[in-house]
Amino acid sequence: MTTATYTAMTPAILDNLTAIVGEANLSTAAADIDLHAHDEGPHEAHPAEVVVWATSSQQVADVLKLANEHHIPVTPWGVGTGLEGNSIPVQGGILLSMERMNQIIEVHMEDFQVTVQAGMPYMDMNEQLARYGLFFPPDPGANATVGGMLANNAAGIRTVKYGASKDNVLKMKVALADGRLITVGSRSIKQSSGYDLLHLFVGSEGTLGVITEATLKLLPVPEHMVAAIAAFETVEEAIETVVAIRGSGIDVAALEFIDVTNTYAMNQGGADIAPYPTLLMEVHSAHESTMAEDIAIVQELCEEMGAVTFKATSDHAERKKLWHARHIAYETLMRNHPGKRIFIMDVAVPISAYPALIAGAHEAIDAAGIVGYMKGHAGDGNIHIELPFGDEESYLKARDVNDVIIRKALALGGTCTGEHGVGIGKARFMEEEHGESLNVMRDIKSLLDPNGILNPGKIFPEGAH
Amino acid sequence: MTTATYTAMTPAILDNLTAIVGEANLSTAAADIDLHAHDEGPHEAHPAEVVVWATSSQQVADVLKLANEHHIPVTPWGVGTGLEGNSIPVQGGILLSMERMNQIIEVHMEDFQVTVQAGMPYMDMNEQLARYGLFFPPDPGANATVGGMLANNAAGIRTVKYGASKDNVLKMKVALADGRLITVGSRSIKQSSGYDLLHLFVGSEGTLGVITEATLKLLPVPEHMVAAIAAFETVEEAIETVVAIRGSGIDVAALEFIDVTNTYAMNQGGADIAPYPTLLMEVHSAHESTMAEDIAIVQELCEEMGAVTFKATSDHAERKKLWHARHIAYETLMRNHPGKRIFIMDVAVPISAYPALIAGAHEAIDAAGIVGYMKGHAGDGNIHIELPFGDEESYLKARDVNDVIIRKALALGGTCTGEHGVGIGKARFMEEEHGESLNVMRDIKSLLDPNGILNPGKIFPEGAH
Repeated sequence: MTTATYTAMTPAILDNLTAIVGEANLSTAAADIDLHAHDEGPHEAHPAEVVVWATSSQQVADVLKLANEHHIPVTPWGVGTGLEGNSIPVQGGILLSMERMNQIIEVHMEDFQVTVQAGMPYMDMNEQLARYGLFFPPDPGANATVGGMLANNAAGIRTVKYGASKDNVLKMKVALADGRLITVGSRSIKQSSGYDLLHLFVGSEGTLGVITEATLKLLPVPEHMVAAIAAFETVEEAIETVVAIRGSGIDVAALEFIDVTNTYAMNQGGADIAPYPTLLMEVHSAHESTMAEDIAIVQELCEEMGAVTFKATSDHAERKKLWHARHIAYETLMRNHPGKRIFIMDVAVPISAYPALIAGAHEAIDAAGIVGYMKGHAGDGNIHIELPFGDEESYLKARDVNDVIIRKALALGGTCTGEHGVGIGKARFMEEEHGESLNVMRDIKSLLDPNGILNPGKIFPEGAH
Repeated sequence: MTTATYTAMTPAILDNLTAIVGEANLSTAAADIDLHAHDEGPHEAHPAEVVVWATSSQQVADVLKLANEHHIPVTPWGVGTGLEGNSIPVQGGILLSMERMNQIIEVHMEDFQVTVQAGMPYMDMNEQLARYGLFFPPDPGANATVGGMLANNAAGIRTVKYGASKDNVLKMKVALADGRLITVGSRSIKQSSGYDLLHLFVGSEGTLGVITEATLKLLPVPEHMVAAIAAFETVEEAIETVVAIRGSGIDVAALEFIDVTNTYAMNQGGADIAPYPTLLMEVHSAHESTMAEDIAIVQELCEEMGAVTFKATSDHAERKKLWHARHIAYETLMRNHPGKRIFIMDVAVPISAYPALIAGAHEAIDAAGIVGYMKGHAGDGNIHIELPFGDEESYLKARDVNDVIIRKALALGGTCTGEHGVGIGKARFMEEEHGESLNVMRDIKSLLDPNGILNPGKIFPEGAH
């Protein structure tokens, strides 16, 4: 991978862009530039030179072709809910928003599939799909677009049962840097026909191509759902219970760890959780009896491992309130630290290593003498730790703790990012995690984007800050 | 992709190979060459110049490095159970057998994972894993190696519930053409860290690298299993029932269609099936009650759709006999046509298109006036059709029927291969199925194997016969 050099925007290129997307879909106004200069994470904002809203796959391809010819960076944008700066236009150029490609193209009822434009927010999609009794399971929390979820391989609280975004997509339309528009994957759920380009583009964070449409796998909305909360005296007991529940083979639909500090944040968000290390769980089933049996086993395991309280509910409103509080916990935390930013961690390890990861994280936080809020998709071995910072000094402390925990995760056979993607923040760990494989990734990047126009400054250490 | 030119084997190169693998692991004897010149499918045999058995990942890498320097083709080999000529050394050179890398490296009990050498046959592995109460779900039938299954993304009768090989692998060691040995994927079940090289190598049929080790996902052996057989008056009723069962959301673990002709073959193999279009089904559950509820719904659906008989059994011996007969049905068919070869089809479509596919296939077979045996993983929209042929004329007829059915599958939004891979036989349909994406595949092939030494003559139309 060579270092790319870029051309600054010119009036002529702006005219060419306008010719592609129309005047109403292009802006250089400060308000639009600012709105698309940062995501929800702690990374520094950076302005694009122009914001362009594509309204068709062909327009996306045409924008890329033009940008490629003129060596102008293009950063794809869903709705900006990323956390690792994945969609910050760090090299300026074109911010290519997919927000106006937000329609369902076709519901394939009998196949439990839907084809959508990439800019469709997944919660809005699931609302529309409810009338068919179907839903798209991955659930990152923020109302991300389908394209953003796929580009970052987003996951969330239901991944322990239903898999991540990559497990729930069949086919995509992708615009390449040179303006070719290709189709990858198949609506057939089985395909052994050539290289799996589908999964090469999923999780590539817009650095290999821009996803413009996707056909997703859907599932029938489970008839029966029960949520459960178990409180423990110690973090260790809670974490060991996670391993025990996973080891039991019970197919939980959510298995979340919430530390004490985060119980306060969740209660502010409308939950009612006692201030203990807590597990939030959910079981889904088409069978009421199965669900009852499963939750009984879960309760037994929790109590065996020392749970001080265990409460289960199948009440819809109560369940909804609980998961809403979980979803907005990050925002609540931000509000609780006005004027500060939050360094948010995202690492994952094999489940057997989860207790060691959490113990290591606690140690690192204590040693640094800072505050860290932990919550995580424990069933997946995934933890998020939120470290508020204000000035340079507290930033550097948070960053040091972050680094120690990431290296711990890697040493435990895990990954530097379970679901937030690499973006800017994790690029400097890619060498350590992937070794020689990173060079293969670099070669593929050079092959598909020789001018380096696609989302520059992401994934690879040489381009990141 | 440029046309590769190869060097013939020399005594000096044989000496170099011997230095890598040792004298006991290299042979130019006719018996060894012949044994590795064909697979179980109808494609013509072709001899390698030498058979080499690697016994470590490093040896595999060293063999590739040597071959790459000298422009010698290398065809990786599991146990030769492929059907599309995927492991036939059509350009001669080195046949690189993985058969002697057949050990379990580590069972990760708490993580439900196992790390194995690529040459481990999956049935043998599952036998060893039984003591832990765990199993690897993909089940192609023949006792293929794990490496072969991953390289071809094999699937089988349990894929409708548990997914194909690609869905059940987490991490692999891969030797590249230039002798680099890389690790792809992670033992963490969640990973959003860079490009998904894992799935790029899975299904690449040894044309991008050679898989030497793999960490697989395992599941607890289900406590309760019930098999069911439903017989229908017509093929249409049976096929519409498949769509109805899939549409019900019942999580069947097998949903197989067997046509009348194949019921005879299965009965020769030890089953006891009435001569009707038949569905074979299985339901797995940790809960006896769930299984009973599910199978009751399946029965109701079958009867609603016109089943003339429905029989369910949870008897272990009876179930085993049934699936054994299904597994050996292809071999039985071969024995029933002595002196003939079998042209075996493998296409898959979205489930809603399955009735149209089967109707189209029947039409094509009838129009050609030949015999075709159908059976398929109907729950996945996957069908296999076996067309016996003897002379050139009957071969051409079978091939014509094959082509008509493949084009039908593609027109229905399906794929030219659901699980057998492209190999030699499907290469000429790749352009039609993938369009411009095939050029991206070509570019990736050239990138990772610039000298074209890795399993030449497979996947791409320009290299195939």
